[in-house]
Amino acid sequence: MTKYVYMFSEGNANMRDLLGGKGANLAEMTGMGLPVPQGFTITTEACNRYYDEGRVISEEIKQEIVDAMREEEERTDKVFGDPEKPLLVSVRSGSRASMPGMMDTVLNLGLNDEVVEGLAKLTDNERFAYDSYRRFIMMFGDVVMEVHKDLFEDELGRIKAEKGIVDDLDLSAEDMKRVAANFKAIYEREKGEAFPQDPMVQLMESIEAVFRSWNNPRALFYRQMNNIPSAWGTAVNVQEMVYGNMGETSGTGVAFTRDPATGENVLYGEYLMNAQGEDVVAGTRTPFPISHLQEQFPEIYEEFKKYGDELEVHYGDMQDLEFTIENGKLFVLQTRSGKRTASAALKVAVDMVAEGILSREEAILHIDPSQLDALMHPMFEDKALAAADQIAKGLPASPGAASGKIVFSADQAFELAKEGEKVILVRDETSAEDIHGMSAAEGILTARGGMTSHAAVVARGMGKCCVAGSSEISIDYAKGTMKADGRTFNAGDWISLNGSTGTVYAGQIATKEAEQSDDFVTVMEWADEFREMDVRANADSGHDAQVALNLGAQGIGLTRTEHMFFDPARIFSFRKMIVAKDEETRRNALEAILPDQQQDFLEIFRVMDGNPVVIRLLDPPLHEFLPQEEAEVRELATNLNMEYDELKSIISGLSELNPMLGHRGCRLAISYPEIAEMQTKAIIGAAIEATKEGVRVIPEIMVPLVSDVKELEYLNGVIKPVADKMIAESGVQLAYMVGTMLEIPRAAMTSDEIALEADFFSFGTNDLTQMGYGLSRDDAGPILDTYYEKGIFEADPTAHIDRAGIGRLMRISCEDGRRARPDLELGICGEHGGDPYSVEFCQMLKLDYVSCSPYRVPIARLAAAQAALRYPRNK
Amino acid sequence: MTKYVYMFSEGNANMRDLLGGKGANLAEMTGMGLPVPQGFTITTEACNRYYDEGRVISEEIKQEIVDAMREEEERTDKVFGDPEKPLLVSVRSGSRASMPGMMDTVLNLGLNDEVVEGLAKLTDNERFAYDSYRRFIMMFGDVVMEVHKDLFEDELGRIKAEKGIVDDLDLSAEDMKRVAANFKAIYEREKGEAFPQDPMVQLMESIEAVFRSWNNPRALFYRQMNNIPSAWGTAVNVQEMVYGNMGETSGTGVAFTRDPATGENVLYGEYLMNAQGEDVVAGTRTPFPISHLQEQFPEIYEEFKKYGDELEVHYGDMQDLEFTIENGKLFVLQTRSGKRTASAALKVAVDMVAEGILSREEAILHIDPSQLDALMHPMFEDKALAAADQIAKGLPASPGAASGKIVFSADQAFELAKEGEKVILVRDETSAEDIHGMSAAEGILTARGGMTSHAAVVARGMGKCCVAGSSEISIDYAKGTMKADGRTFNAGDWISLNGSTGTVYAGQIATKEAEQSDDFVTVMEWADEFREMDVRANADSGHDAQVALNLGAQGIGLTRTEHMFFDPARIFSFRKMIVAKDEETRRNALEAILPDQQQDFLEIFRVMDGNPVVIRLLDPPLHEFLPQEEAEVRELATNLNMEYDELKSIISGLSELNPMLGHRGCRLAISYPEIAEMQTKAIIGAAIEATKEGVRVIPEIMVPLVSDVKELEYLNGVIKPVADKMIAESGVQLAYMVGTMLEIPRAAMTSDEIALEADFFSFGTNDLTQMGYGLSRDDAGPILDTYYEKGIFEADPTAHIDRAGIGRLMRISCEDGRRARPDLELGICGEHGGDPYSVEFCQMLKLDYVSCSPYRVPIARLAAAQAALRYPRNK
Repeated sequence: MTKYVYMFSEGNANMRDLLGGKGANLAEMTGMGLPVPQGFTITTEACNRYYDEGRVISEEIKQEIVDAMREEEERTDKVFGDPEKPLLVSVRSGSRASMPGMMDTVLNLGLNDEVVEGLAKLTDNERFAYDSYRRFIMMFGDVVMEVHKDLFEDELGRIKAEKGIVDDLDLSAEDMKRVAANFKAIYEREKGEAFPQDPMVQLMESIEAVFRSWNNPRALFYRQMNNIPSAWGTAVNVQEMVYGNMGETSGTGVAFTRDPATGENVLYGEYLMNAQGEDVVAGTRTPFPISHLQEQFPEIYEEFKKYGDELEVHYGDMQDLEFTIENGKLFVLQTRSGKRTASAALKVAVDMVAEGILSREEAILHIDPSQLDALMHPMFEDKALAAADQIAKGLPASPGAASGKIVFSADQAFELAKEGEKVILVRDETSAEDIHGMSAAEGILTARGGMTSHAAVVARGMGKCCVAGSSEISIDYAKGTMKADGRTFNAGDWISLNGSTGTVYAGQIATKEAEQSDDFVTVMEWADEFREMDVRANADSGHDAQVALNLGAQGIGLTRTEHMFFDPARIFSFRKMIVAKDEETRRNALEAILPDQQQDFLEIFRVMDGNPVVIRLLDPPLHEFLPQEEAEVRELATNLNMEYDELKSIISGLSELNPMLGHRGCRLAISYPEIAEMQTKAIIGAAIEATKEGVRVIPEIMVPLVSDVKELEYLNGVIKPVADKMIAESGVQLAYMVGTMLEIPRAAMTSDEIALEADFFSFGTNDLTQMGYGLSRDDAGPILDTYYEKGIFEADPTAHIDRAGIGRLMRISCEDGRRARPDLELGICGEHGGDPYSVEFCQMLKLDYVSCSPYRVPIARLAAAQAALRYPRNK
Repeated sequence: MTKYVYMFSEGNANMRDLLGGKGANLAEMTGMGLPVPQGFTITTEACNRYYDEGRVISEEIKQEIVDAMREEEERTDKVFGDPEKPLLVSVRSGSRASMPGMMDTVLNLGLNDEVVEGLAKLTDNERFAYDSYRRFIMMFGDVVMEVHKDLFEDELGRIKAEKGIVDDLDLSAEDMKRVAANFKAIYEREKGEAFPQDPMVQLMESIEAVFRSWNNPRALFYRQMNNIPSAWGTAVNVQEMVYGNMGETSGTGVAFTRDPATGENVLYGEYLMNAQGEDVVAGTRTPFPISHLQEQFPEIYEEFKKYGDELEVHYGDMQDLEFTIENGKLFVLQTRSGKRTASAALKVAVDMVAEGILSREEAILHIDPSQLDALMHPMFEDKALAAADQIAKGLPASPGAASGKIVFSADQAFELAKEGEKVILVRDETSAEDIHGMSAAEGILTARGGMTSHAAVVARGMGKCCVAGSSEISIDYAKGTMKADGRTFNAGDWISLNGSTGTVYAGQIATKEAEQSDDFVTVMEWADEFREMDVRANADSGHDAQVALNLGAQGIGLTRTEHMFFDPARIFSFRKMIVAKDEETRRNALEAILPDQQQDFLEIFRVMDGNPVVIRLLDPPLHEFLPQEEAEVRELATNLNMEYDELKSIISGLSELNPMLGHRGCRLAISYPEIAEMQTKAIIGAAIEATKEGVRVIPEIMVPLVSDVKELEYLNGVIKPVADKMIAESGVQLAYMVGTMLEIPRAAMTSDEIALEADFFSFGTNDLTQMGYGLSRDDAGPILDTYYEKGIFEADPTAHIDRAGIGRLMRISCEDGRRARPDLELGICGEHGGDPYSVEFCQMLKLDYVSCSPYRVPIARLAAAQAALRYPRNK
């Protein structure tokens, strides 16, 4: 029979999945002999069963709870509900992953009209007893029974005002009695029934409330943001109360074993005397810094410090502790790994290795790779931010901070930036046409699209701040205005974006630059030592490649050649190519592009000397490169010496109902092999030139969107003869590879065939996810919102690889591909390449490398090291 | 070592894959002792090696050919190239599948300036010798060396004109000499070298030409149409010549053992005396019917008849024979299964069973299921068709024949049809909005889209004639004109469509109705006895369901509920639902639709009494239901009491970049559960009503576009409570199922999870193919054309299931789904359900049923029977 309730003395830290983090740590501290108020934990399995059985706690589990309560009564020689020797408890949530503040807590449970009197007698402290009661009534009412907290707080405020006092401490015992009585009246009025007097009813209702709170909106949102499965459930901890509000030798506080902001090895925290936990958080009284305790109660301070050090060594991590002092006696109520800033995380890790607390492997595993992102981008200055005027929220699509003047078109952004203006490009959505403007802007704000919309993907690639899909703004291009927060903003008005949080502010906010500390460098060196996969970057220019190299990239996993065509100086030739009516015109237009493209590649090769560079052949649908607005079409027609109607009909002929499933990827090169020929010439030409300069070049030509081996076979027949001839004629030694971007479900299914024609696969998980789910990343936004809301999706599959479905396609592809061709190089160049959860999966698949946007390279390096430590390759 | 050349005496009919059909049958007839001119076959593997090695015949194979030639010389006591006793041969292609007229043939090979003189002496027939020589020069020039045939024919015509004669037979020996000399001069002029005199050179060049012809454009097209893999290659047959042009007791002809048009058991064919094979085909001389041979040479006729009967029994099939009479001696040159009309195929099968030649199983396997299609639809009368004025070609999207007046809008089609006019709806493409017009029209013609474009799919579902994607027409909606064949057609002009061939004609053409013969009924009864899978139909109305039932459907595999909303009487309420800003308005609008929808289902249930009916919940993106043109939007706004701008903004808000990957399928019902509720009410309400009437109803509610089990879980939570409550309240006994359309790659990958929430999977292979290939069926047309042209695709994956990729997804889904839930019902409702090749694959997967459009039910029944005979289920 499954056991659903564990006494603290029965558990330990390894039972985290079952007991939740808090419960497991309480059990562990109990085992270590720390002064922990005792109690028991109701398991996460009980929570799951609660939901499975239609939101009821089964009789079997209830009986276990009652039994545990009896055991607790025996241990303490107190009785639940007995005014003579009352047992009072707290009920707290605690899930496997830390979800601070997301779920509910009830304190002082077990009090009723009789017990409170008993407690007053027993402690000889009526004020304390009624203070505890009124707190309990409010928490139970608010948390368990959904009576709005404000009703109680307003009443408390009213009584304080009546008495002309400010601090709760100044309320007398009589006042507290009155507060408690009025709170009960509010409860009865709101619920239509009296406040429950049976402690066992209070307990069961509170436990159920904690189970329920697992699915409250903020918990759902937190899980979605942090990729925590709903199936984990929460445990519930029932613990004997100790009281920080018993008088002047009682108190309560929280502390970190090191400074969570800087990582400095110093006890850091705050406390309040004669208070319960929520008073520290609520901010009605100003707590003291923990250092003050050293002066006030040096022995207690030393004892606490000793426990902190002990726990830090025991857990091998900086701890976040809660404690209570009851009549001069110290109790530790909770310990957990402390949340910390990115730079603190690095410092703590490096220090703990130096202190001999952690091995380097352990230190690496203790750092959350996603945190590093914050270190890579400029941020707003803290002070400036505090005063900032928030006007909208959107998706945190690409991190960093930026201020600039609003512009509504890419051309305008490009022009103004050329004149030295700082601009923010504001669009409903962006398209490939807008690249030059995006590149010129300080940041990008869009009203539509998700985390993998065009704006988001391109911005991340550029390392540019972007807030995407902000439904709270509405743009009127014609008027040149944006509405947000009920206000109207005009082109030229200053706004600021925080791409790390998705926040939009009015006005200009001062920023500070990113910097890399020594700790950062140390941690990265360790990571590189442990990891088994290479980390490459997605970069489209020599500049981006240099950024990536500086951040530790070992090659380029994806160069998108199309971005190179949007340069205003080149787009004309490219458009000429697209609308050409015969091969010769097309070839001539391509010839005009060739030198520029070759120069781009040459710059990347030079930077990446000795490292591989994957270059993808032209990918997006051609109509993306053509203008849509009448004036632009007219201008282009004039420049091309073409009738307007003719050009317009060519453009509309190229439009498709579902461009994502249309004439793009290798389909372009198959229709127009001369494009692939030109691109091969540019790649191999640049590689030969670089080789002659003494640069070591390892070009990998990547054919996108292959669904059938014959596509690749055909294009190998176009690419290789051109490349081989050039190399032979040049006289240099140059090896190159031709492979495919594995991004179509059918390609995954036929990987054994495709591997025979491919030197490498690079998983294009953006498209693989899109096609695999049948869900367009550009249209997914509102659908995903609904899905989160209804609990259907817990995380955005475009942000974290869906291991069950899309991951299975990848696994089959890896297995079949390697079986057909043991030396097949396998990598990933989709957006997932910079996501730690996805990087871990790539390690499980034994990929050779991951590739991500330049600024995510450190994250990928650390994530790859962690993955290698967790899932070593068994070479 | 692989053997590449087989003497006829070494082979037999079972070696078809290696020797091709012709070679295997020549070998078989040799074994049977029939008078077959002897020779040898170069295998299909030699052809494949020819291509693999870059289009050269390897020395090894050449040597085998030379050796075989030597053996032939010994057997015949003739010598290749020796004027004294010349060995002359024909060189003919012959692939595994019959591809009549697609590849090349060379006759009289071995003749040169010397040998022709020898032949003249030997036969004492100078005219015959030079007639043969000039034929050889022309064929070799045309077929092998690409000298255009017209050059030779013009020269022959010139000489005949000069001499004032019409019939080749009137040319004298001297004339023939002159023709041959002039032909050689033409050859030399065109090729820049003399006509080759070395017979071995002639032979090798000709063999290579046959290999080459495997990939000529008409062969490629034929293979694509008939789903024949390029990898099969062609064999080459080298056979001693016998001569039908040696004089009045020589001749040549072709004959079927039964009438290929009617199936009647009578020798049917034609012949010419003093002629070679191509004369019979060329039509320059009018051949005699074969019955005439009975009078002219009764003994030869009887001998030939005997061989025909013998071969028919031996092969168990009607044969198509070629024969030559050389100086009164009969030779059989070829036998193969005879092509026949659909009705002939049925009659031959039924007769042969009655005659004891075939078992019923064998008879079933001898009929091509695709042929039955022709029996299901009205056709043009043969005479009327002969005089028809063809103006364009398009894709044969939905079979049948239709004439009507051109209309350019669905509304107009609907209005005119109501007035009793016959109309053809002509559109660039159709969308869900056009359904009422499509339904009202006699036929549909579109300028864009492929075999699975909207127009094609819907038309096939309706059993309505459709020519799709005719790039030869161009439509100007504004002017109300269509251009084709350089002419302009106006709205109201008559045109005619042949949806079976994709041909468009000007004017009205008389049609004849389809009829089902006794043979058809007999064959269908046999098929039903053998098959293991059920055959259901896709039908959206009681009428379609009745058609399907009449054609043998055992249930409905797909009812598309959205088609019901396009009825002009209902669309308003539906549009009101779509643009509703709150749930209540949406619910009210849905309530208004409910009675109509319920009535639709009731009619289907009544027809399908005792058979299952799968009803799919609303599937297409909502914006498909809204008007796009300004006038219509304005009208709707007025009717909805809404501002034009507001409605317009709602409509544009619903538009998506890739609607196929957007807000459709179950995503609609998840966003608006009230839609699923209303549809459940309509389905279960109708089922209850029908049950009360005494009808046995088996409703299966199908949730489309599921990619994750949680979607289905959520909708089960919407559907089942509504359904269960209604059934409980009604007091009737009613079982229903809830399952999913399996059409998303990720759903296939996670079928084990999904099966736990689904009573059935129905493979939606249209979308599965679309998503699996990343190729939109609406945009695929031009891409597929390029792919066929370049040999990348050999067949349209939307027409025949791609077994390697999409099929593998299905296989994984079946296996995982059944493992999770052994009683899972598995079916297919995509367009592939009516395609024999795909039906066979479904049998391999052991599906429970296939479902197809009503008019394809007989095809599916026969195909399922054949598949069961070939791949029995091992129950």
